[in-house]
Amino acid sequence: MIINKISSVKKNPVTDEKAANVEIQIPIGVDEGSEKIIMRLFTIKPKGYSPLHTHNYEHLVKVESGKGIVVSSEGETQISEGDFVFVLPNELHQFKNPYDEEFKFICVIPRVL
Amino acid sequence: MIINKISSVKKNPVTDEKAANVEIQIPIGVDEGSEKIIMRLFTIKPKGYSPLHTHNYEHLVKVESGKGIVVSSEGETQISEGDFVFVLPNELHQFKNPYDEEFKFICVIPRVL
Repeated sequence: MIINKISSVKKNPVTDEKAANVEIQIPIGVDEGSEKIIMRLFTIKPKGYSPLHTHNYEHLVKVESGKGIVVSSEGETQISEGDFVFVLPNELHQFKNPYDEEFKFICVIPRVL
Repeated sequence: MIINKISSVKKNPVTDEKAANVEIQIPIGVDEGSEKIIMRLFTIKPKGYSPLHTHNYEHLVKVESGKGIVVSSEGETQISEGDFVFVLPNELHQFKNPYDEEFKFICVIPRVL
């Protein structure tokens, strides 16, 4: 059993050139011995955004704090604390923060590497 | 893409006879089309506990609110908001709430049924 406090988990910028002002922490991942599932925490700063993209694996998202916009092929939806988002494999998606406070969410994925 | 507000997700008691005062919600699961990973939210009321047990799949846990005790073969650890717990497959574990307020945590598992 491994217990990680989020305050001790390294925070790195997301370097994807189609992202801006996004940071990632991985409180439960390969380093903790998780072989099938990875739990990440993203922080999108004001005016930041993740890439508008698709990939062949799903996202299970839970908003932690702040509010943001999730983009799909059907448009934009505001999400905030207490909202869960399931993004299907190969579904277009993006997370944006046009607001003035940080937008934080958990994003769980299958281990893909 | 499916967006679920936690307030609209049905809450059911955990009926395991070795559990007490535990409720479960499944904001992202089979009903949402998630084929590999299930995201559950547990609420353990004061004096409640989950079973002390093992199973052949992992848990990825994030404490949402309140505080509780996680039990492993090595003893008991208090956990609270901002803590993440990775329980390995086949590892003994239990979650308990000896405190006076509700203890809530996300628990992600691979789809096992």
